[in-house]
This record gives sequence, C-alpha cells and structure tokens, in this order.
Amino acid sequence: MILTGKMLIGQQAIAGDREAVRAINPATDTPMEPAYHGGNRAHVEQACALAWAAFDSYRETSLAIRASFLEAIADAIEALGDELTDRAVAETGLPHARIQGERGRTCGQLRTFARTVRAGEWLDVRVDTAQPQRQPLPRADLRQRHIALGPVAVFGASNFPLAFSVAGGDTASALAAGCPVIVKAHGAHPGTSEMVGRAVAQAVKHCGLPEGVFSLLYGSGRDVGIALVTDPRIKAVGFTGSRSGGLALAQAAQARPEPIPVYAEMSSINPAYLFPAALQARAEGLALGFVTSLTQGAGQFCTNPGLVVAIAGTALDRFISTASELLPRCAAQTMLTPGIFNAYETGVAELTRHANVAAQGMAPEGPNRGRAHLFITQADAFLNNPALQAEVFGAASLVVVCANDDEVRQVSEHLEGQLTATLHLDEADLTRAKALLPVLERKAGRLLVNGWPTGVEVCDAMVHGGPFPATSDSRSTSVGTAAILRFLRPVCYQDFPDTLLPDALQHGNPQLLRRLLNGQREA
Amino acid sequence: MILTGKMLIGQQAIAGDREAVRAINPATDTPMEPAYHGGNRAHVEQACALAWAAFDSYRETSLAIRASFLEAIADAIEALGDELTDRAVAETGLPHARIQGERGRTCGQLRTFARTVRAGEWLDVRVDTAQPQRQPLPRADLRQRHIALGPVAVFGASNFPLAFSVAGGDTASALAAGCPVIVKAHGAHPGTSEMVGRAVAQAVKHCGLPEGVFSLLYGSGRDVGIALVTDPRIKAVGFTGSRSGGLALAQAAQARPEPIPVYAEMSSINPAYLFPAALQARAEGLALGFVTSLTQGAGQFCTNPGLVVAIAGTALDRFISTASELLPRCAAQTMLTPGIFNAYETGVAELTRHANVAAQGMAPEGPNRGRAHLFITQADAFLNNPALQAEVFGAASLVVVCANDDEVRQVSEHLEGQLTATLHLDEADLTRAKALLPVLERKAGRLLVNGWPTGVEVCDAMVHGGPFPATSDSRSTSVGTAAILRFLRPVCYQDFPDTLLPDALQHGNPQLLRRLLNGQREA
Repeated sequence: MILTGKMLIGQQAIAGDREAVRAINPATDTPMEPAYHGGNRAHVEQACALAWAAFDSYRETSLAIRASFLEAIADAIEALGDELTDRAVAETGLPHARIQGERGRTCGQLRTFARTVRAGEWLDVRVDTAQPQRQPLPRADLRQRHIALGPVAVFGASNFPLAFSVAGGDTASALAAGCPVIVKAHGAHPGTSEMVGRAVAQAVKHCGLPEGVFSLLYGSGRDVGIALVTDPRIKAVGFTGSRSGGLALAQAAQARPEPIPVYAEMSSINPAYLFPAALQARAEGLALGFVTSLTQGAGQFCTNPGLVVAIAGTALDRFISTASELLPRCAAQTMLTPGIFNAYETGVAELTRHANVAAQGMAPEGPNRGRAHLFITQADAFLNNPALQAEVFGAASLVVVCANDDEVRQVSEHLEGQLTATLHLDEADLTRAKALLPVLERKAGRLLVNGWPTGVEVCDAMVHGGPFPATSDSRSTSVGTAAILRFLRPVCYQDFPDTLLPDALQHGNPQLLRRLLNGQREA
Repeated sequence: MILTGKMLIGQQAIAGDREAVRAINPATDTPMEPAYHGGNRAHVEQACALAWAAFDSYRETSLAIRASFLEAIADAIEALGDELTDRAVAETGLPHARIQGERGRTCGQLRTFARTVRAGEWLDVRVDTAQPQRQPLPRADLRQRHIALGPVAVFGASNFPLAFSVAGGDTASALAAGCPVIVKAHGAHPGTSEMVGRAVAQAVKHCGLPEGVFSLLYGSGRDVGIALVTDPRIKAVGFTGSRSGGLALAQAAQARPEPIPVYAEMSSINPAYLFPAALQARAEGLALGFVTSLTQGAGQFCTNPGLVVAIAGTALDRFISTASELLPRCAAQTMLTPGIFNAYETGVAELTRHANVAAQGMAPEGPNRGRAHLFITQADAFLNNPALQAEVFGAASLVVVCANDDEVRQVSEHLEGQLTATLHLDEADLTRAKALLPVLERKAGRLLVNGWPTGVEVCDAMVHGGPFPATSDSRSTSVGTAAILRFLRPVCYQDFPDTLLPDALQHGNPQLLRRLLNGQREA
C-alpha cells in the first residue's frame, strides 16, 4: 500500500492543509514519509455532517449486517499483511512479535464484538405487557430497548497502535453499538492509522453502509480534537492517553450546550501488594515476575505495576535485592515517541528527588531508550508526598515499605483510583487480604490474585476501568464486551402497534432475544 | 407523630442552626409549624462521615437483607397512616386522592426494588473461566460483578412529595444498589419529609443496619446542597427539579477533584403529535384527553404535554376549538408553592408575549391558583424563537401549527431533549409516523402511541429519562427498575480463590444467579 498522507472523510481521501506531522522512527530518531497535514474546522464539519447523515440508518442496521461489518474490518486488516506490522514496528519501536500479537488481538476484538452484536443482550429488551383490567388504573404495554447514542469521536492511543487506535476497542465497541465513528489519529503512528483507516473504509464500502459511518482525521488535539468534541453532532468520546489530555476533553465536553459523556482512560499506577506469607515463601520468584511485568514493552502499559506495597522485613529485603539484581540485566528499550521518552526521563528525575533509587536497568544505547528504574520509599513519605503517586509512564516502579498492616491500609486508602490492584498471597495471608479487599474494591476496576496486571484479556468479564483518575467514568470498561454499553441509551415504547415497533420489541420476538418479560427472564 | 423540626443524622435527631423554613400551605398561603432550621457544614460532614462508615458493610449486605430493608421502609411509611397524607396534602395543595395514590406508588416502588434486588440481575455477573492450555497465552479466570458507587446525595422534588422525595425513586434505587443515602429535603414539604425520614431511620434500626445508611438534612441548595455534592465521600447525586438547579449541581460535581455522576431530571415540554387521520377521526376526543392530561395536578408533572404539533386544517381547528371550550370549564388549581405559582405566572406572561392565547381556564379564586393556558403559534415562529421552547411548569401548553410534514419534521429536529414524545395516529398515519420515528427516538426517552404522557408506570421497561436537558444523563432512567443501574460500577476479580470471592462470583453459584458463563447465558 502506498501511503498518501491523506485523511479519510467518508470514502474520500482528502489532504489536510494545517501543520504536517511525520512519524518518527523512535529507534533511529528519523522522520518517516509521508507528511500528514492536519485537518481544519471544515474537515471536522464535513466528517460530522457525514456521520450525522449516516446515523439514523446505521443504528438500525440488522444485527447480522452490523456483525458482518465488524468481521469485514478484521478481514481487511489481516489482508494488509506484513506491510501493516512493518510500518507499526517502525513507527512505535515495539518489537515485531508484540505488534503481530496486537494485530491478532485487534482482529479478535472486532470478531468478539460481532458475536456480542449478534447475541443482542446489549439491547437489554424489557417488556411489560398491558394490563387493561388492573385497578385502580390499567397498565399500558411498555417495551424498552437500547439505541446508539450518536456519532462518537475516538482518540487513538500511542501505546496500542492497533488495539486502541483507529480500529481498536473504542471504535469496535462504538460501531457495535450502532454509532458512526470519527477517529482522530494519534500523531505517533499516522501511517499505521492510514492503513487501518483504509481497511475500515473498505469494509464500509464492501458492506454497502453509508460512508459517514467512519472517518479518519489528522491534526492537533487543540484544533481537530476540541472541534470534534464540541461539535453538536458528536454524542460521546472515547480516549486513551494522558490525564491532562483526558481532562481537557472532559471539560470541553461538559462545557457544551449539550454536555456529552467522555470515556477517558487516563492514569494508573496499579499497586501490587506482597502479603507476608507469599513474600516469605517466594520473594525471588515474585521479584522475577515483577521485573518481567515492569519492563515488558518498555513499561508502556496502562496496567504497568508502578507501585509495590509490602511490610518491612527480611522477605521484602530479599524481594528488593533480587529485583535489584535482575533489573541491571534488562536492556533499555525504545520508547514510543521522543515525547514519551522525555516525559519518562522527567518523571524518573522527579522520583529520584523524592525516593531512593534501588536499581536501574542497563544504560541506553541509542535514542529514546527508556532505562528501567526501581525506587524505594517509606509509607509515611508516600502518605505525605503527592509526587510519589504520580504516574510515570514507562518501566519505573516504587516500593512502599510499610511498618505494619495499618500502614498498608493507610497507603491503600490514600491511593487515587486505579485500573488494577494485585494481591500476592498464600493461604496464611487470606485473613489479611480479606480485610483489605473492601478498600481495593473501592479503588480499582480489576483485582488480581497471584498474577501481574499487564495482560488485559478481551472477554465478557474484563473490566479495564476504575475510579477517577484511572478513568473519567468508573461505571464503564473500555476493554471487553461490556464496553459496548458505553454508547447506548434506553428508549421506551408505550402502546405501539407491532408494525411501528423495532424488530427487537415486536410481539413475535423475531430476533429470539432473551427478554425480561413481565419480570421474568425468557429462557 | 409530633413533628420536631429536626434533621436526622443517622439515628440522631439534630436541630439545625441556620435560617429556618416553614412549610406554607399553598391553598391558604399560611405558614405551618414547626420551623425547620437548616444544617451547617458540620452537619453535612457528620452525615457524610456516617454514610462513609456504613458504606463497606451496607454494600455487602445479602440480597435478602437489603430487600427486607426496602420492604421495611414501605411498611413503616404505611404505618404513618393518615397523618402522613394529611400533612402532605396541607404542604403541597395536592388533592387527597392524589397523595394517597402517590403513597401507594411510593411503597409499591420500594417493594418493586426489593424484588429487583433479590433477582440479582443488576449484578450483571459474568464469568470467563481459566483456559490454562490456551495458545499463545493461557487465559486467567475472570469474574465480574457490580458494586455500589458509594454514598449518594438525593435532592427531594417539589412535585412528588412522596414518590420522588425522601423515600422516592432515587433513594429506593440507590439503597437497592447498596449505596447509603443522604437526602436534602425539599423546603416545600419539610413535615412530610420528616415523617418519611423517621420511617426510613426506623427501618434502618429495625433491620440492624449501620445508622449511616440514611440521613436527612434540611437547608438551602447553596449551603447544604453544594456542600453535599462537593464532599469527597459522596459518589453520585440524584436530583429532580429545575434546569438551573440541576445544572448548578452538575457543574459543582464536575469541578470536584474527583468528578462524580449527577442524575438530574430537569426540563421537558413533552411534544404530542396529532397525525392527520387520527385528528380527522377524533379531534374532539383528542382535545378532551389533552385537556385532562394538561390540567391534571395543576399541570405539575415533568411529563405534562406542553407542546402539541399538528398540520393546519379544519381537523386541527376542531381540536383547538374543542380544547378552547373545555379549558374555561377547568378550575384554577392550587400550585405546590408560592414560588412555583409565581414562576408559572411569569412563564405564562412570557408565552403571552410570543404566542396567541387560544383559551384560559377559570379565573382563580384564592392564592397560588394556577390558571390553565392554551397558546397557538406557527411553525416558523417556533423555529425562530427559543422562548417558545422553554418549559413552563404548570398547566400551559402551546399548539404549533405546521403547514406540512416537512415543517413537522423541522419542528421536531429543532426540539431539545425530552422525557416523552406522544404520537396520536390511525392506520392511515403509519407511514408518516414511521418517517418521524427516528427523529423522536433521538429526542426522547419514552415514545407513546395514542395515550398521554402524564402517567409514568414503575416497571422494568419504563424509561423516565432522555437527552439533555430532559436529564443530565441520557443513558439512565430515574423511574423503573433500571434506575438501580445508575449507582453501580463493575469490578473484575482475576484468579481469586473461592474463599476470597464475593458470594455472587463463587464457583458454586450459591445465589443461583443467571450468569454469563463463557459467553453463554445460564438457564
């Protein structure tokens, strides 16, 4: 595929006229062709007009057609072959195997949402039939289903150029819900974005859908991003990125004449608790697992274990000393962009001012290589210094040494909202863990036992979300099939004749949905 | 019951020390004893501390205990007998029969949520079991349930002193979800609020629950209201009232260090469409139904039909002339408060400046009597004058006369978000109605055929919600069992030993929930 540097507004490839970005190969610090000129307000206007024009018909496509569309996107992405993965590797500095895995995840995710669409549980159909004889007043026939919110603006993430970008989780779940999507590509991987965007546009055409179902824009967050979020035709926003970026979008969305929901996944340091018996039994193994999780993908995961909490003692000393032996053997890894690398260096320098350095990874060879860092601090310092709780995006982590269970609890209560919390425990730790659990449930969207948080399964039960500032909306998940629920709203139909009812609500139940019928769930 | 004029902070009755309000009997314009002094910041602090202390244990009460608690509240309200209804009648000017009906609705609502709690579908349990052999990576055991968001602040509504006030829909659904509730009583019915509040506190005690599960505060929105919404321990807000009041709370909630969801039900004029064939066949009957719905309860329903849309012609003339004959026979009715009466008068005066008066109700005899009003305007005037779309709370309605289907569509697209939209139609109108339906689905939470919107059934399929400004969150309903979903968030448990899992997620499924197990819904 020859990259054009153009945006996709519906089926049209259109060149922007604002400042250009080029991808930078972070491994070599060299810019890559072509240039991607940013769009202007007229381009945003055009994409929103098309999305709006497509909305009413797209949201009422049959479940079968919408599912086939999602599958067609997956097929089209796979058909891009090595060209896609080569470009993504060059633009992100991520290893080939990781990018190939991510492509599998991305296409699997689209197909999972296709199955979810077909099953139709997300429609949450509820039927209360008429009771004309009821006293003192008859009951009307009432039927509820969910419909799509409207066109959705999706902001691609830097750290998942496929799985959380142009055709990633936000796009897949919004399209599944029946929402047209306008993606603002992340400037770090514009070529990957163009390839995937063209695959989506091709699937739109292949399935005979209105072209406004999908557009792909380039440009700055301030220009194109805010213009998108404040356009009256955009009805929800999906975002994965920094806290400041997410908050800016949330504020813009709230300041609209009609405020809209923003699903921003922003900031998490993912505390891992090492309970005494587990630590005593396997401090060295825990250290190995920890260092592996910490340094995976240069630590550039939202769920990276950035905090370790444990009670002081020889077992914790063994954990720290083993981790401190392992870390210097870890090569510095290319980070996603020069900007992310610089932010990491700044964050590490800040932690160095406030905590003790326990160990460092190998010294970097080449540009934008993030060197892993392990820091140590005491509970009272952590409790009194907000700087120690700031997310440092990359392979940096902080061990908080607590004197006793009470300090562990205080540290936990002091934490901001998190995507995950991890508990390493043995049988003898269960009572302690049980006592801490209510705090962790209040703090995090996913709790893990004896694992590491960096793997995020795409499945029904996943929660990739959590209280603020992990996300802007703790009631939702951005990974897994429940992500579709973010883009829906309920509508009730009272005393409608069958011919006017949507299929999902008709008396004959032609879609064979498992409805809640007069309070009973149908088999 | 001797009213004390005191707040309830947990089980303690405490007198406020700020400016006092007394209820005013609007029928006679006379103040009623006792005085209710407003609380100060320390009272808010105390109620929030108790609610927070109660949260972790209350949210994990068994489904059976929580359901019994809701039923105990209903029983305690019924045990208040005529004293409650007499006081509510005196404080609101609403007729006895209406208040008795509302008590039935309120208690029925509590019992409906008890059934919902027991059924447990709101937990949305999803289980994906481990796949240790999966390639390339094993899958962990992942289990999701929903937990309560945290303590909820509820603002009582003026127009439903029972069903949307101290133990109304917001309180019932938040308690059902496992959230402690702090109610700020509406100043218009403080005595009713005290009685119901004491019934709730009695049920808390009877069920052996922590006292912080429920508190009742008095005071101004600026003082107590904003202090509640900005307290870090409050995690969600339920509100029914004016647009300005709802927006102020939403803004305060968004400006917090940790923003929280606000469910504000605010403003709706509930368009009713009279399609040509139906209008031709039964203009007079429609006019009777319309006037009945318009004037019910002095028009003080969120779902009052404040807008009628139809195409010009002799059939519409018949509708208008019949309504104009009926309206002068409708007595002016006591409105809820002098403030609401004054706002109604102002709104009517404003409409009088911008539209033609078709008819008026009987002249008022006595204070605070709202006189029904019917106005007429043309579509182009409506499209160009935002004043014609402002909600006038009370028995005022505006007929928008359209030249043709296109103007009907333009008027519809021009509408702000609504709680309801009503379609009066016959067989011959189906094509027209079908064409308009996508617009109405985008505009309203509930669509009705051949009825009037003022009845709102408490059931599974009800949606009392809708796009902004009908509510601040179109993804939710404040009436019906789905209202519980507003106060929940998902939490995922990965690789947890059974003993550490909450009951709902344990391998043996002890609560016999219908889980989503490996993608299949259990029978």
